[in-house]
Amino acid sequence: MGYLITLEGGEGSGKTSILKLMADILGQQGHQIVCTREPGGIEIAEQIRGVILDRNNSSMDPRTEALLYAAARRQHLVEKVIPALEAGKIVLCDRYIDSSLAYQGYARGLGIEEIYTVNKFAIDDYMPDLTLYFDVEPKVGLARIEKDAGREVNRLDVESMKFHETVREGYHILVGQYPERIQVIDAGNSIEKVLEDALAVVADFMDSRKN
Amino acid sequence: MGYLITLEGGEGSGKTSILKLMADILGQQGHQIVCTREPGGIEIAEQIRGVILDRNNSSMDPRTEALLYAAARRQHLVEKVIPALEAGKIVLCDRYIDSSLAYQGYARGLGIEEIYTVNKFAIDDYMPDLTLYFDVEPKVGLARIEKDAGREVNRLDVESMKFHETVREGYHILVGQYPERIQVIDAGNSIEKVLEDALAVVADFMDSRKN
Repeated sequence: MGYLITLEGGEGSGKTSILKLMADILGQQGHQIVCTREPGGIEIAEQIRGVILDRNNSSMDPRTEALLYAAARRQHLVEKVIPALEAGKIVLCDRYIDSSLAYQGYARGLGIEEIYTVNKFAIDDYMPDLTLYFDVEPKVGLARIEKDAGREVNRLDVESMKFHETVREGYHILVGQYPERIQVIDAGNSIEKVLEDALAVVADFMDSRKN
Repeated sequence: MGYLITLEGGEGSGKTSILKLMADILGQQGHQIVCTREPGGIEIAEQIRGVILDRNNSSMDPRTEALLYAAARRQHLVEKVIPALEAGKIVLCDRYIDSSLAYQGYARGLGIEEIYTVNKFAIDDYMPDLTLYFDVEPKVGLARIEKDAGREVNRLDVESMKFHETVREGYHILVGQYPERIQVIDAGNSIEKVLEDALAVVADFMDSRKN
């Protein structure tokens, strides 16, 4: 069996860029890497995502949405992640259960415990082996995104900032709940430093599994 | 608040015909009745059903399917059932949570407890106030269906019969778990007798709620 490593964090945490860089380096080290994110091109999961994102579905209840995300997660897991793990590969997945816990469970107020229950049904025994949480102040993360998009930093409205701060609070609660599995990486640093830290955490994890 | 009354049973138990007859009689008695079944014409729930029933989706995992059914249930509940209950109406719903527990949880082997957990998230506080379980031997129920379709009774294959017997076992377990909520009606009797028994159970329930 391979390992399921998930990357988590708020907007502008840099996790998606880091994922690609990590994949290259781990690949050069001789590991077989699969990079993915939900719905990951899985037809059924894409169809489910289509229902969630349909603009006509503005009456969608938050619990309906949470169940649909869990359904798409299940199918992506079964069709793409599990076969890769069974082939001994390292799967790097951009967002997974913790995103649902932090965003829907905590920030949207559906309850971490309740969202966990539904997602546990979806993922069954496939909790991540290791989770890298890229921690960054929302002010910094959102400024990065705005900069990328060439917009003014001061267009960030208070409401949005508050939501992202709540998401971060949610992630911090999860770090407290899963101190072994979730490793915090200071994503306020330069990308070189963040990458170095992330690779060090993965190397430690691999060593620990060898013993 | 009105009442949510669900009708449950295996194939050929007659519950769908009884539901219509009950609705007429309860309506004549002056009750405001809403008859429904999932997905009940609710656009989002219909879209979800479309994903489940898409013939190209043969690779759909049973847990994905269970989550999708729960999602469709949630939306139907929020858009159709709850508004009716809040308007003081009696909602008669053809199949609800117990169908998922008996079919997916027990007969398909996903576990009654696990399917309950997912569905409890979907329905939240909206467990049925009363459930009529129309109990009939699968041999009898399936023979009724075959007769309706003008087919030969002996075309029932053993595999299918065994599945329906397992569904019935599942319902019997639920009756044991919810002896107050689920009332058993012998659906092996004539439709007149089954209707009479069902109406008597509903009348008793209404009386108990008046006190």
